[in-house]
Amino acid sequence: MDLKKYIYDIPDFPTKGILFRDITPLLNNGEAFKYAVSKMVEYAKKVGATKIVAPEARGFLFGTAVAYELALPFVPVRKPGKLPREIISEEYALEYGTNTISIHKDAINENDKVLVVDDLLATGGTVNAACKLVERSKGSVVGMIFAIELVDLNGRELLKKYEVESLLKY
Amino acid sequence: MDLKKYIYDIPDFPTKGILFRDITPLLNNGEAFKYAVSKMVEYAKKVGATKIVAPEARGFLFGTAVAYELALPFVPVRKPGKLPREIISEEYALEYGTNTISIHKDAINENDKVLVVDDLLATGGTVNAACKLVERSKGSVVGMIFAIELVDLNGRELLKKYEVESLLKY
Repeated sequence: MDLKKYIYDIPDFPTKGILFRDITPLLNNGEAFKYAVSKMVEYAKKVGATKIVAPEARGFLFGTAVAYELALPFVPVRKPGKLPREIISEEYALEYGTNTISIHKDAINENDKVLVVDDLLATGGTVNAACKLVERSKGSVVGMIFAIELVDLNGRELLKKYEVESLLKY
Repeated sequence: MDLKKYIYDIPDFPTKGILFRDITPLLNNGEAFKYAVSKMVEYAKKVGATKIVAPEARGFLFGTAVAYELALPFVPVRKPGKLPREIISEEYALEYGTNTISIHKDAINENDKVLVVDDLLATGGTVNAACKLVERSKGSVVGMIFAIELVDLNGRELLKKYEVESLLKY
């Protein structure tokens, strides 16, 4: 299935000069979304994942469907103020300023083989920070998979110690 | 399966006097999450849903898993600035101030029988606004389902024209 026909290119969003890859047409086609998730499920099996981790909000779109299919535990990576119990956090650089993401301190343990799932690999900052949270919790990152990879932004360089897969490359 | 044992009660979160129902332990148990989603899938079949609509971010956790299982289209309901193409929006009242949510203008059509999915039914403001977006797009809302319903907040009154179901009542 050619998933690229379900991704719309939107020039100048969210700001001028950015070509945004819109995944909502893919979500809005039941067979295409099922196919995309099934490819992520295949990869989760291949790398032997026992837990799925995904950043809010768009990582949730794919991550929980993968977890559901495999009956694996799911850990949401959240922005500040969202998780109610004791958390650990990582800060990472953006083009302007920084972002902070968190997981519950008890969310991951030393037996967990984690697959990180997100919609988009750009510079890799978010998922790299998510991997640090997993590793600080003594879990291991067995792979990461994205619906879309923006190859020119070279996120794989930042993530070179990890297994990285993507469904669609631009 | 007694799903309530996977919901943690957190007093005074996010603010003093609020008892927060934390769903992350449910997500972090593969069998419990699979069971919760499977009950939503049963309901989606019962009401004859042909499309799943869910608000960000926690609605995504359950909504896409339901859509995936049934190979149904999924429409994300998003906060301002997140959707790149032409949108329609609804504003609704909060305790202090207002919130605005949006969908793409072409996300729903007159053939869609929509199930709205969210993690929590409190006062019902968000999902009621989501239903208005569906109906303005000429779709019909055939039901809505929540992981948790806070019965005392009486969201069902606001939503009385809809079929409302929840997995857990508090």
